[in-house]
Amino acid sequence: MTDAEPLGEFELIERYFSRSKSAAGNRTDVILGIGDDAALLRVPAGADLVAAVDTLVAGRHFIADCDARSIGHRALAVNLSDMAAMGATPAWATLALTLPSADGAWLERFSAGLLDLADTHGVALVGGDTTAGPLTISVQILGHVAQGTALRRGGARAGDWLAVTGTLGDAGAGLALAAGRLHTAHYTSAAELVARYEYPSPRVEFGRAARGIASAAMDLSDGLAGDVAKLAFASGLAAHVAVDRLPLSRALESVVPEDQAREWALAAGDDYELLIAVAPHRFAELAAAAQRVNLMCTAIGELRPGNGVQWTLDGRSFTAPAHGYDHFR
Amino acid sequence: MTDAEPLGEFELIERYFSRSKSAAGNRTDVILGIGDDAALLRVPAGADLVAAVDTLVAGRHFIADCDARSIGHRALAVNLSDMAAMGATPAWATLALTLPSADGAWLERFSAGLLDLADTHGVALVGGDTTAGPLTISVQILGHVAQGTALRRGGARAGDWLAVTGTLGDAGAGLALAAGRLHTAHYTSAAELVARYEYPSPRVEFGRAARGIASAAMDLSDGLAGDVAKLAFASGLAAHVAVDRLPLSRALESVVPEDQAREWALAAGDDYELLIAVAPHRFAELAAAAQRVNLMCTAIGELRPGNGVQWTLDGRSFTAPAHGYDHFR
Repeated sequence: MTDAEPLGEFELIERYFSRSKSAAGNRTDVILGIGDDAALLRVPAGADLVAAVDTLVAGRHFIADCDARSIGHRALAVNLSDMAAMGATPAWATLALTLPSADGAWLERFSAGLLDLADTHGVALVGGDTTAGPLTISVQILGHVAQGTALRRGGARAGDWLAVTGTLGDAGAGLALAAGRLHTAHYTSAAELVARYEYPSPRVEFGRAARGIASAAMDLSDGLAGDVAKLAFASGLAAHVAVDRLPLSRALESVVPEDQAREWALAAGDDYELLIAVAPHRFAELAAAAQRVNLMCTAIGELRPGNGVQWTLDGRSFTAPAHGYDHFR
Repeated sequence: MTDAEPLGEFELIERYFSRSKSAAGNRTDVILGIGDDAALLRVPAGADLVAAVDTLVAGRHFIADCDARSIGHRALAVNLSDMAAMGATPAWATLALTLPSADGAWLERFSAGLLDLADTHGVALVGGDTTAGPLTISVQILGHVAQGTALRRGGARAGDWLAVTGTLGDAGAGLALAAGRLHTAHYTSAAELVARYEYPSPRVEFGRAARGIASAAMDLSDGLAGDVAKLAFASGLAAHVAVDRLPLSRALESVVPEDQAREWALAAGDDYELLIAVAPHRFAELAAAAQRVNLMCTAIGELRPGNGVQWTLDGRSFTAPAHGYDHFR
């Protein structure tokens, strides 16, 4: 007779992600959560389903020995950021977790990081798959948006302004500090910058507010230089960006010279701010929407007929780092 | 000026998965596919969304040097099998692909395996994330099912029969043959068994047909011994299974003695058949539904009040391998 107790892998998921059961239970749109062959979910009437997936790999997307709480937070944050970029409401997530061994202390921290952020955004973890292997974390996020209202990369029109939320380059500095490549006596700034890297705040609330105001949006994951090119390309337009207008934080400016700060803003990635295209006469509305969620919104340039990206610094042509982060270059 | 051409990672995905663009284009329920921050999908009115994720890791779930076409096929098949187990109609998939390098020949084979199977089931690949790292493949499958009609593990009632589709243990033998652990002069049988391992056929059509007939269902991924325990546990019942009734293929019986065949049927996993609970008076309907899709459906036992699994062989108590495949034991 085989005992019908749950198996080891099952126990593992149960123990560290059991909190997600109550979260799933609180959502009436979760018909069936973790524990069956698949989850059953109810998308609101009149809404479209929004789906994205992002993977974090040890040694690539995080330092191997960094706090597992940060890894858990970031694994969900990068996906929430995709929802923000669409103006969508995140609702459910699944987790594909590949890890070398079932390390209880690590799982405790990792699940806390992931589930705390899920709770903040009311997201239920509804399924997952745990496998043994090199540390790799894929989160699939599912959300919804009223039909026809999602923000897209390709919606910008010639004459639209380009704007970004928050400040850029902080995560790049935070990573440099965390990795020991940058040192500073400004401990408060350092702590702030490291936190910006380790615990990014996806701009979900603002993304939802920007629907109906913005003409296009995307999230800044790979660095502005590469990402602005993608939005311009998707919209069939040229982007003109004034590098001197990029919003830099005081913390960042206190630890490195301006040219280094700009380089991180353009090419370091991991900021998870939003890049928005908006008609000039609606920029004030957008800025007000940002204000309501305690977020800055800065105009950095505009879109014109043509293609490619033209960068200027104090009115003169400027050569930006060619591309953002690209995994196979 | 930065050239607005697509970036390397982007090109990679474009080149090998571009076929999925046309497939997505053929589905009117794909509002926005690959290329934005997220996909926009339309779930049919009156249907629930069904979501699952499964990961394949090199060296764990496939032999490192096996044909990438098989890896691509299996990565989607294991997820389609979850849809089959719910009686759901698969519709969309996303792919999280971590690979050591952008190897064109490998990607060509991998994408062909995945997309051929996607085409067979009318599934559109609507998003993905490609990262550099140890070879790991996560597929997230999304489907739908009319509200209230999904098959679950926990729906069985005392007195229900347990049945399985197809034959069991073939994939175990196929893996042993592919890995060089088993040798045989029966080349036709060997080819058939290896194909059962490398190219499993998820029982999607049958799963849909079983809705309204079956009381519970799950897919057999980890081996019958562990999986039947899970269904019994989820339903709060005891399973009684006659091992002598397990359906074994002629190919399997031609290459190994019966006791080895049974061991693979019970514990090897990877068969991706369905385990079904059905009221005895409805078994004929279930078998007829199977017949219509050229599938066998064999009664192997029943569910009774209690817990655990009782195995018999020719009427005598039998000790089955304790558990199916478990990644952390």
